[in-house]
Amino acid sequence: MFPADAIARAKHYLAMAPGGLGAYSDSRGIPGIRKEVADFIHKRDGYPSDPELIYLTDGASKGVMQILNTIIRNEMDGILVPVPQYPLYSATISLYGGSLVPYYLEEEANWSLDFVNIRQTVAEARSKGISVRAMVMINPGNPTGQCLSEANIKELLQFCYHENLVLLADEVYQQNIYQDERPFISARKVMFDMGPPISSELQVVSFHTVSKGYWGECGQRGGYFEMTNLPPKTVDEIYKVASIALSPNVPGQIFMGVMVNPPKPGDISYLKFAAESKSIHESLRRRARMMTDGFNSCRNVVCNFTEGAMYSFPQIRLPPRAIEAARRAGKSADVFYCLKLLEATGISTVPGSGFGQKEGVFHLRTTILPAEEDFPAIMSSFKKFNDSFMEQYEGYSRL
Amino acid sequence: MFPADAIARAKHYLAMAPGGLGAYSDSRGIPGIRKEVADFIHKRDGYPSDPELIYLTDGASKGVMQILNTIIRNEMDGILVPVPQYPLYSATISLYGGSLVPYYLEEEANWSLDFVNIRQTVAEARSKGISVRAMVMINPGNPTGQCLSEANIKELLQFCYHENLVLLADEVYQQNIYQDERPFISARKVMFDMGPPISSELQVVSFHTVSKGYWGECGQRGGYFEMTNLPPKTVDEIYKVASIALSPNVPGQIFMGVMVNPPKPGDISYLKFAAESKSIHESLRRRARMMTDGFNSCRNVVCNFTEGAMYSFPQIRLPPRAIEAARRAGKSADVFYCLKLLEATGISTVPGSGFGQKEGVFHLRTTILPAEEDFPAIMSSFKKFNDSFMEQYEGYSRL
Repeated sequence: MFPADAIARAKHYLAMAPGGLGAYSDSRGIPGIRKEVADFIHKRDGYPSDPELIYLTDGASKGVMQILNTIIRNEMDGILVPVPQYPLYSATISLYGGSLVPYYLEEEANWSLDFVNIRQTVAEARSKGISVRAMVMINPGNPTGQCLSEANIKELLQFCYHENLVLLADEVYQQNIYQDERPFISARKVMFDMGPPISSELQVVSFHTVSKGYWGECGQRGGYFEMTNLPPKTVDEIYKVASIALSPNVPGQIFMGVMVNPPKPGDISYLKFAAESKSIHESLRRRARMMTDGFNSCRNVVCNFTEGAMYSFPQIRLPPRAIEAARRAGKSADVFYCLKLLEATGISTVPGSGFGQKEGVFHLRTTILPAEEDFPAIMSSFKKFNDSFMEQYEGYSRL
Repeated sequence: MFPADAIARAKHYLAMAPGGLGAYSDSRGIPGIRKEVADFIHKRDGYPSDPELIYLTDGASKGVMQILNTIIRNEMDGILVPVPQYPLYSATISLYGGSLVPYYLEEEANWSLDFVNIRQTVAEARSKGISVRAMVMINPGNPTGQCLSEANIKELLQFCYHENLVLLADEVYQQNIYQDERPFISARKVMFDMGPPISSELQVVSFHTVSKGYWGECGQRGGYFEMTNLPPKTVDEIYKVASIALSPNVPGQIFMGVMVNPPKPGDISYLKFAAESKSIHESLRRRARMMTDGFNSCRNVVCNFTEGAMYSFPQIRLPPRAIEAARRAGKSADVFYCLKLLEATGISTVPGSGFGQKEGVFHLRTTILPAEEDFPAIMSSFKKFNDSFMEQYEGYSRL
């Protein structure tokens, strides 16, 4: 029923969990799997990683929540968070009573980070008495789909170092890359490439998950965070907090092991694994292209290419009459547009206001995950709706 | 390989999770499983339960943490917590910055609740400006192993009602009952039996898990909480917070379904299931008896019978010279005793100070989970160590 290497792999993980899947593990996760994650990081970055500084979690979100809970003491503690941003960070900062300090991604510069603006943002927050303690980087971006350049990540690390910020590196989409100019490069690798004092002093926590990648096993809730340069006392406190809920779920931990340690050349399952992964990846790559090209062919729609992650985040330039119609309907303009789109076509998208956007600028987020063969019909249906919507509200329509 | 009813059951749950085990579910858990939990509660208590007020969680601990996070606004918000208590509540209250208001269980009255004392505890806390908002009940008790009587639960409910406290009913050991005088009765059932206004107004959140019972599938991290009489706006906020981490793990949810909906008479697997459950339960019952009888046969050791849960929590009456020896060794007296026990016998226990105990009174906690056939040797080894320890420190020994 299963190939011999899959059976051997199952035995390998069962041997690591002597109580079986039904017993609590170490609160930080099964040691053997943390070792496999460390090997994966070492191989990815070229710098060794310490399994004692890797904690497995019930999905990356739970890890992010735990680290934010560690950082936030009260409402005067600020966390720099990109805008647009998927709502994990804003919601968690609000839940734990900290201050969100938003920094805007530069849409015109492919959603990159502009440190002249960010420096000003931090200075303003500090002038209000906020103690800015950490900065969140999401790379590849959600909902924005960009891959940050190495040069931009270097600036980011220098900035965090000089401003004494812990960097939270949300790198859950590291496997989802759809172009060759900017392959994924981890903040940790760039940091070690830069050498001391940044590599030896900057505190970084990076997050990964089994929910994304090519497989998307999100129902299993597997994730990890890796801590670099955190003081041992802080690591001990984080261990203590992780112990409150006893252990992450064990099957999710094993999914993490399988993800970081996939079949290798020579294994019975390797060819099948490689072919399936390649096929999923290439299809996602084509879908990213079809999605952004499709949006860019529409009237008043501009969309940065989806370089990574799973989302397109086109800007919808709404005519003043559409904004006015939305106001009369008691809705924000992007919500109004997305609801009309849903009603007319059945296409469900998330209005940009759910992620934050600059005043008077409107977006929507959609995934690139529909079946590839459905793309032509979806994009044509979208275009038909959009162009007629624009015609109507630009005033050329007889309606 | 599997009987037909097991295969049918697997298909039943897969049909409830159309994206498979690898897709996020509703943030509150799969609706069909929440319905099965509601049916289980209805059948258990004789009062219907609403699936919309049942949220599945990654183990009961995560549910408790979420509800405490909802209740605690700042360090002036107090939570009544039993002492002795397993450390989930004290650690979480500390993590979320609330105030723990300890109430002592009455060891001489079988670890029951004395509301004369508890009323005084609340009055004292309030006189210090603490807003006491909730009360934790752990029944069956951990680490104390008692089952509360219906009369004691009634007093508890009246008390919570009159003091305007939310009741957190930690009932995760409801299946682990080892005597017939006090079967498990849920706080919710007692409340509905009492009728209005308590049944219609008292806010109760009760917790359950797949980690305990006869199976103890704790590595799967499955749990639920059920909310009774919570204002709809509060329920909505709790839903919003549950959504931050997207969904509980799906396999753990299915374990919950299987647990609340076991094989029924007439099912192919029923006889085997019933025989295995009965055998585990009867063995645990014999072990509870052997453990407490064993402790009570030892010099200076008194132990309430383990009526439920999985623990014995004997009091160890340490002679003054043992307390003095511990002091000289820089250890608290119960830690000193437990370490000596470990060194002499290999028996690993948890000192009572890990759970809280009255000043100058000492305990240890042990589970009743060793294999039944090992019990005579374990208890005899314990007795030999204890009696010689007591002899040494009572001064009759030549050592």
